[in-house]
Amino acid sequence: MRSLHIFENKNIVMKKMLIASTSTIHGSGYLEYILPTLNRFFNGIDEVLFIPFARPSGISFKSYTERVNKGFSKIGIKIVGLHDFEDQKKAIENAEAIFIGGGNTFVLVNELHKQNLFPVLKKVIENGTPYLGTSAGSNITGINMKTTNDMPIIYPESFQTLDVIPFNINAHYLDPNPESKHQGETRETRIKEFHTYNKTPVLGLREGSWLEVNGKDILLKGNLTGRLFRKDKNPIEISPDYNFNPM
Amino acid sequence: MRSLHIFENKNIVMKKMLIASTSTIHGSGYLEYILPTLNRFFNGIDEVLFIPFARPSGISFKSYTERVNKGFSKIGIKIVGLHDFEDQKKAIENAEAIFIGGGNTFVLVNELHKQNLFPVLKKVIENGTPYLGTSAGSNITGINMKTTNDMPIIYPESFQTLDVIPFNINAHYLDPNPESKHQGETRETRIKEFHTYNKTPVLGLREGSWLEVNGKDILLKGNLTGRLFRKDKNPIEISPDYNFNPM
Repeated sequence: MRSLHIFENKNIVMKKMLIASTSTIHGSGYLEYILPTLNRFFNGIDEVLFIPFARPSGISFKSYTERVNKGFSKIGIKIVGLHDFEDQKKAIENAEAIFIGGGNTFVLVNELHKQNLFPVLKKVIENGTPYLGTSAGSNITGINMKTTNDMPIIYPESFQTLDVIPFNINAHYLDPNPESKHQGETRETRIKEFHTYNKTPVLGLREGSWLEVNGKDILLKGNLTGRLFRKDKNPIEISPDYNFNPM
Repeated sequence: MRSLHIFENKNIVMKKMLIASTSTIHGSGYLEYILPTLNRFFNGIDEVLFIPFARPSGISFKSYTERVNKGFSKIGIKIVGLHDFEDQKKAIENAEAIFIGGGNTFVLVNELHKQNLFPVLKKVIENGTPYLGTSAGSNITGINMKTTNDMPIIYPESFQTLDVIPFNINAHYLDPNPESKHQGETRETRIKEFHTYNKTPVLGLREGSWLEVNGKDILLKGNLTGRLFRKDKNPIEISPDYNFNPM
């Protein structure tokens, strides 16, 4: 009876994702710290479709794509920018693999909603197209973008995102600085405020950490622990190699 | 001819506002650093209407109002919370003075839009009802809330705010820390990204600084300089007592 279950499951989940807190860690080049992992992850893939919509510091799609291309050239992978395609939905459907980079999450989500690209992205990810996200590109793998650190410089038509992992990400997670004299809220306070209005768990992903998703398995990777926040519970530290798949 | 101009101006502006970066500075009690200024500003006023909607750390309207009442008791002013009124519009129209405190700007703006209170707030402020804002309560005096530092934990129906000063505020403005190893965007980078999509000038208001608005005069107060960001221009430092009224 057990094996039958596989055939009854109409929504077989094939996800293959890397969800990284940041593209760059201190004192290291663009994507450098994660290149060996990317090399393994993109094994057999020649070309990755890059979505440059988050525009860090407002740079152009073209410049951003060139920067990413340079980073990926070290592992022999060619980058093509989504903005260069007439039919963006088709480009996503046909992509060997997809990378969404960091920048401003509001700008990224605004553009993806405006072009109505969330449904096709979700579909190809669930069908197994390898997906890499860094920073804003990682935030959008969660239920919604309500735990981004970014400035709301543009009003997107919705805060809903890909919903391909069962919790939200807080990228670039920062521990409170006990020596700070600044009165602005700490990251932990902000996430607690989020839980006043929302039930979704939030994973604080420190720089240098990432998630590896294989089907239903979601593993924390890198050397650092992650900080998991749940409504009405004390936050806990999650060790590397922990699997968020409860089954 | 010059004096005639006064009569021709149908929109005589009577604004009287204090717009503070923060309610509390390091090592000092709630509102303590600004109490002498508040004492002068609220001279002759017995009761201030407090709007607790921003709910710092998710505290209740009641607890927040009690905290504020305690702070104001030192200058002999009674605080009443807007949530205790049946008819909130009437309460705002009848208020001797109004204070909107800090917390989460998304939560505050969401509630003010939901209750449709922006138009009546704008009207009474322009008619001279003294207004005090701290943090989130200061952010909303600008054109929109697109330069808040807060987490978007709730989706408001619009980012538009009071538009009673001709620029946006960035409260709790923080200078870049040259020793930081963190890769998250600095405040300055975020505001530059804002100017990729928006023309509105942004005043970075450091903790301990505030604006005093008298009619068309907008003066920077406190001991620190403010940092003014304008699209396609280098940011500049503004000295205390600078008047933003160009006329």
